[in-house]
Order: sequence, then structure tokens, then C-alpha cells
Amino acid sequence: MSDLEFRFRHTMLPVGDLARSVDFYTRLLGMKVLRERTEGPGGHNVAYVGYGEEGTHPVLELIENTGNHDREWKGHIAIAVSDVPALVKKLEANGVRFTKALAEPKSGTNVFIAFICDPDGFEIEVNQRRGGIYS
Amino acid sequence: MSDLEFRFRHTMLPVGDLARSVDFYTRLLGMKVLRERTEGPGGHNVAYVGYGEEGTHPVLELIENTGNHDREWKGHIAIAVSDVPALVKKLEANGVRFTKALAEPKSGTNVFIAFICDPDGFEIEVNQRRGGIYS
Repeated sequence: MSDLEFRFRHTMLPVGDLARSVDFYTRLLGMKVLRERTEGPGGHNVAYVGYGEEGTHPVLELIENTGNHDREWKGHIAIAVSDVPALVKKLEANGVRFTKALAEPKSGTNVFIAFICDPDGFEIEVNQRRGGIYS
Repeated sequence: MSDLEFRFRHTMLPVGDLARSVDFYTRLLGMKVLRERTEGPGGHNVAYVGYGEEGTHPVLELIENTGNHDREWKGHIAIAVSDVPALVKKLEANGVRFTKALAEPKSGTNVFIAFICDPDGFEIEVNQRRGGIYS
């Protein structure tokens, strides 16, 4: 693994009311809203909150999903990786279970993304950013 | 909140087999074991794994609990706070639910610790470290 770089990017919490959660984390726990994405009814409403910029600091990803879920809807941990296809090959060779296969995202700043399960079934997102793991 | 400092410290995952999880995160996802605590049968076996030292980097706290649980056994997010008693006063005044009241830990490097619930019931640990939030 010496050729791969990793960084924790976020911990995702699925929330019932995004405005309520943003209020809680900013007003009571001192976080700032770093980025928001609103798709409206039937889509995802997302806020990234934390104590420093996403490019260098870990954050919380709060997602209110107002549509259908294509798979079990639960929290996850996201790790930025310097070469996701190389990592995926290694994970596949080790029998790791994927909940979302390696894909090129339709938009945004990720070039590759996949979701895997750890031995207890916790979901881990591995994503490769256009500008490297510190972006 | 301008007088309080915060930092994400870890995301805790309750695991079924600590050795299996440590193998997964170190061998496949490039993490290092930063700290371990083994209490043996009936207690908690804990490993902290991540990509940098706990004093400055977020980590995963993996806990295999071999004993009884005094409350619902699930993951949490831990935030280091510069003054936990002051924060707790504010949280109480705002009607936040506590799952573990403010206490002085029996041992270790924390001076104060409490567990609260966010609006969706996700558990947040707030802890005050003897050496400050970067320790």
C-alpha cells in the first residue's frame, strides 16, 4: 500500500430534517456550514459542516434523503484515496463486499467512487478527487 | 461559542471481532494502529486506527465489547472540546438529551466526558483532554 495515499474525508449521518441538524451542529457544537447541495423533493439535501475546510479537515456530511433509497440507508465513513481503481483491485482480490461498484460520478469533483463494507457491515466510501486527496 | 474550541477526535464503530477489524483497516485501507487497550473477557477491547497521530488527526475507534452494555450499543462521533462543563451548561439550557451525564473519567487523559444525542438520536461524545484539544 506504500503507493497509495489516504485521508479521512467525512462521516455521513442520514438525518430526518436537514435544517434542524444544521442548526444543532452550528449553534450548539460550534461547526460552520462549509458546503450545501439542495436537490429538493425526491432528491438529496446535503450539508457539510465542521471545524475547518474540507480539503484538509474531516467534516460531517448530513444528508436528508427525500426520495427512494436504492440501497440500505445508513451512515458511512468516507476516505479520500489517491488511486481508487488500484485500491478496488486489491479489495476485490481480498473478497471485500461492494455495496456500490466502482463508477465515474456523473458530476462533481470526484473522478472515481465506490462503496464497500467492512467486516461488520459498516459502509466505507472510497473516493478519488480530481485535485488529489487534499482537495 | 467564540470562547470554546472544538476538534473532531474519532468516529467509533462497535465491532464484533477486533482483530478482524484491525486487519481490515490496516492491511486493506492503509491505516496504522495508533493505540490499543485490552480489558479482556467482560470488558472493552479497543483499537485506534488512522492515517496520523490522534493529537492532530481524526481516527477510527474500534471497540469490541465483550461485556454487558449499560446503554444502547452503537457508534458515535467524538469531539474534543476546550471546556466541556461550559458546553454542557449550554446544551442543557437548550434541552439537549444526554445519554451519559457529565463525569470525570476514572482514569486516562480526559478530564471531563459526556455523551449527548443529536436531533436524530446519533450519539456525540464531548470530551475535554488534560492537554487541550490537540493532545
